[in-house]
Amino acid sequence: MKKDPLNSSDADETSRPGDSYVQSFARGLAVIRSFDAGRPAQTLTEVAAASGLTRAGARRILLTLQALGYVEADGRLFQLTPKILDLGFAYLTSMPFWNLAEPVMEELVEQVHESCSAAVLNGTDIVYVLRVPTHKIITQNLSIGSRLPAFCTSMGRMLLAALDDDKLDAVLGASDLTARTPRTVIDKAALKEAIDVVRSQGWAIVDQELEEGLISMSAPIRDRQGRIIAALNLSGNAQRKSARQMVKAYLEPLQAAAVRVSEMVARRG
Amino acid sequence: MKKDPLNSSDADETSRPGDSYVQSFARGLAVIRSFDAGRPAQTLTEVAAASGLTRAGARRILLTLQALGYVEADGRLFQLTPKILDLGFAYLTSMPFWNLAEPVMEELVEQVHESCSAAVLNGTDIVYVLRVPTHKIITQNLSIGSRLPAFCTSMGRMLLAALDDDKLDAVLGASDLTARTPRTVIDKAALKEAIDVVRSQGWAIVDQELEEGLISMSAPIRDRQGRIIAALNLSGNAQRKSARQMVKAYLEPLQAAAVRVSEMVARRG
Repeated sequence: MKKDPLNSSDADETSRPGDSYVQSFARGLAVIRSFDAGRPAQTLTEVAAASGLTRAGARRILLTLQALGYVEADGRLFQLTPKILDLGFAYLTSMPFWNLAEPVMEELVEQVHESCSAAVLNGTDIVYVLRVPTHKIITQNLSIGSRLPAFCTSMGRMLLAALDDDKLDAVLGASDLTARTPRTVIDKAALKEAIDVVRSQGWAIVDQELEEGLISMSAPIRDRQGRIIAALNLSGNAQRKSARQMVKAYLEPLQAAAVRVSEMVARRG
Repeated sequence: MKKDPLNSSDADETSRPGDSYVQSFARGLAVIRSFDAGRPAQTLTEVAAASGLTRAGARRILLTLQALGYVEADGRLFQLTPKILDLGFAYLTSMPFWNLAEPVMEELVEQVHESCSAAVLNGTDIVYVLRVPTHKIITQNLSIGSRLPAFCTSMGRMLLAALDDDKLDAVLGASDLTARTPRTVIDKAALKEAIDVVRSQGWAIVDQELEEGLISMSAPIRDRQGRIIAALNLSGNAQRKSARQMVKAYLEPLQAAAVRVSEMVARRG
């Protein structure tokens, strides 16, 4: 895991000309990321504080983002514009399974009446890239772009199982192995054993390790070369079905859906 | 409508020091946007061609994006990483109605069995920010971040109705008023009349002007000051229900849902 250059806000902007472009760009992105649910609209002073920049530096970046249409000002308050979504949309549409996976996931949800998502690995996290909720009015606060730790989620274990041993060690070494429930496996050796099981059986299940009452099962989406590029999951409530019952009822349709998406990716690739 | 700085790729990078930071940042974002479904992985030469940069310029930006974790290289091919989604996620979570709207939309879809979306205005387009599809396996290829022209969509007309006359004239003047179906209203005076109707009745309907067979109805989401900040829609198939039947069946639940979300936004603001 590399040091996050976004956090090196203490570096002098002008001292190293070779790095200045990287740093400027990093700061612009840090300003974008300083806006969130707790800070939807910020003054210049607030942006500077949140992104670790001087007022002058924050001002220059805000004016740049404003000139490019990514930020707008309303009096003293700055906020992001929806043009920001173009960047994420570029990523989503560049995924080989985007557009192919969604109708298959819709059919799966229609069949099993549980929520289905797709995620990819990014560092120590999984990142949601598609989600088809079942209409059971249990909001999980998960959207495209949401992150969860890989080590205690079924999609994460599926994606970790695709790494070679060195890479897996590196990711587990960089992971914050904090228990989310009394069931969370946080011992590295035990996690590697669990991931070995996923490797050999070809699918993953995580039973209330992320959250009490939540069980999730995952299967891999592969590219034409057979490499795992994403995971597809079904998640359900432990009160309604135990892990054993979920495997019995849903493993087959989940695996069939993942194979269908993989075949579509292979045909298109 | 301002000139898009992302398109000014012919400008000399070094000639105007005051603008160089804006231009560098714009170029970085242009490189991100050069990736899409048709170009999911690109060589340096392809990125340069797609973003209008020199090879040297494209190389510097790709290495910057790689250092920051937004791009990864596989041999000669570069591709975006899911970290890109953090930027859009910052925008989404900064919206006052995000998280509040989704459960209400889920309930509405459960009740009426038609797809429900939320969108905001950006220039001449609407941009989808939330979407709850009905499970009817009709994929509309619309995702968070998707854009559609405002003038011929019901969410667009709802959002255009919130603009003052000068702003509305500017947006219509900048819009590409191309007919999508034989029903698309493309005459500016007629569009302004249609938008006046939306202003007075407080909701919008567009009957097969975007796409044959597609009818969409919208209601406004307002902030505490009563300003329209987003539109909520229901879309259905003209074969199943005519525009008149849709209004009769769905206008009330749609408006009730929009009012509920607006009240939640007001309470939180």
